[in-house]
Amino acid sequence: DGDKVLLLDTGFFSGIRASRTIEAYGGIPIHLKSPIGSAPTYDDVKAAIDSYRDLKAVFIVYSETSTGVLVKDLKDICMEAHRKGLITIVDAVSAAGGVELMVDDWCIDLCASASQKCLAAPPGLSFVSVSERIVEEAYRRKPRSLYLSLREYLEYSSNREVPFTPSIPLIYALSEALDMLIEEGLENRIARHRILSEAFYNGLEALGFKPLPRLGYRSPTLIAVEPPRGVSVDRIVSMLRDEYRVLVAHGMGELRDKIIRIGCMGAISSMEVLYTLQAIEHILSKLGCNVEPGLSLTEASRILSG
Amino acid sequence: DGDKVLLLDTGFFSGIRASRTIEAYGGIPIHLKSPIGSAPTYDDVKAAIDSYRDLKAVFIVYSETSTGVLVKDLKDICMEAHRKGLITIVDAVSAAGGVELMVDDWCIDLCASASQKCLAAPPGLSFVSVSERIVEEAYRRKPRSLYLSLREYLEYSSNREVPFTPSIPLIYALSEALDMLIEEGLENRIARHRILSEAFYNGLEALGFKPLPRLGYRSPTLIAVEPPRGVSVDRIVSMLRDEYRVLVAHGMGELRDKIIRIGCMGAISSMEVLYTLQAIEHILSKLGCNVEPGLSLTEASRILSG
Repeated sequence: DGDKVLLLDTGFFSGIRASRTIEAYGGIPIHLKSPIGSAPTYDDVKAAIDSYRDLKAVFIVYSETSTGVLVKDLKDICMEAHRKGLITIVDAVSAAGGVELMVDDWCIDLCASASQKCLAAPPGLSFVSVSERIVEEAYRRKPRSLYLSLREYLEYSSNREVPFTPSIPLIYALSEALDMLIEEGLENRIARHRILSEAFYNGLEALGFKPLPRLGYRSPTLIAVEPPRGVSVDRIVSMLRDEYRVLVAHGMGELRDKIIRIGCMGAISSMEVLYTLQAIEHILSKLGCNVEPGLSLTEASRILSG
Repeated sequence: DGDKVLLLDTGFFSGIRASRTIEAYGGIPIHLKSPIGSAPTYDDVKAAIDSYRDLKAVFIVYSETSTGVLVKDLKDICMEAHRKGLITIVDAVSAAGGVELMVDDWCIDLCASASQKCLAAPPGLSFVSVSERIVEEAYRRKPRSLYLSLREYLEYSSNREVPFTPSIPLIYALSEALDMLIEEGLENRIARHRILSEAFYNGLEALGFKPLPRLGYRSPTLIAVEPPRGVSVDRIVSMLRDEYRVLVAHGMGELRDKIIRIGCMGAISSMEVLYTLQAIEHILSKLGCNVEPGLSLTEASRILSG
């Protein structure tokens, strides 16, 4: 029988997607759910680890892009799991570069991210950081494919080579994007994401939108809000796209028609936040909502100037 | 026990690499070797299929980049394997767009290629063509990973979607490269690769290089030659790189110090062929070989003007 993996189910990627991935590799996913818009806390995870005595690993999507939820206790959860001998696996795809993340200090055994989110390079590259324990596991197990074999990459990289043709143009693009991150400063970038996301939420709440993630559980990189009663998600998404050239997404799965999702990461600045809020104000007016002109911008700029 | 897969072992990619990939997926590779510089023929493969009565599939690297060998009987081999009920799998990475390849007419069930070789787009994308039989197999089997699950891609593509973030910039680049292929014309492009490779071999033979692939087994996309006696592979490779900014490769594995490999694909023209030959002439002179100036160029241009 496969290894049991505790997963913190806070939405599509940490729920259905993670579960299917674990199952494809022969593992047994155990879902730890929390009320929508929140994430399991340190206490929740500690209790789960103690009640399932035969867990092998904990799998966490730090910033859940389908709901905008951040696992706020990530540090304490990973350190507790590590103390209990579990492998800690963190998907930091929409987190790395946008929110605090100390891979080694927080005892994260395997941390994966990608080029296209807060690092603001083109999509097409992903990377993993692995602990000694993961290296041992990789050598202990028979690889299940050659292309995604960690052992294969480790062996080639010891000669400063790669096993398969890499996308050189994307590597140059990522290198430039990382230079830009260093110029901005990681702490400044993290602060920028935090401030802009707060401005977004403040502005949207002034317009009658309801944040999906609760306070304290809001990822700074993905804004997820329910529109005011009677306003259709599809209408907002299509009008933003067609009339303002602003691309936002509807929800995923059951949330399809319930929320809009706005990316707040990478190259975003206060300009995009203000322009998007203004566009949404106009759309609400056109749809007949009673909107006080400029209110969302005022509320947003209260944060931006703070 | 796993499925038995007959593989036509003509070098590193069709030998060790293919074998390890098949093993990683639980299959049993059966190597059909041929003397170096040649490939199993239709008769060889037919005899092998008849002697191993329990084969599931045949795996063929059409153009073997480690040796410059082309599986010249690909069409007849695939049609025979298909008649016998086997699945035919063709790696056309350095073949698609550079040599004749009729996926459906030749009964190829699964054909894989990539963006960066004869299609002349940047590296980073690969694609597969699959027959109905492969689709059935994909649905009959439990996926072994989610990221490389064919079923996952098939299901999303039925809604014109993809399961994972694609590299949009590379897709635009590939689209442009395919437009350029259509402008040139596929037949013209195939003829170009054939003519330029013959020019390369003619020129290099005039300089005392010995082709690794035998006549009739030469891939038009990768030139593989042994240097004249006493001339070191490393010397040629490093002088071409440092003094002429021409990148060629040494051999792989056992052939490391025995051959040089010259890419002859994609955006290559007679200019690159002539410049490379001239550079090699100069290098041989510098190394003290007795070279008749211009001879290789004359021999190459005999083909180019033909």
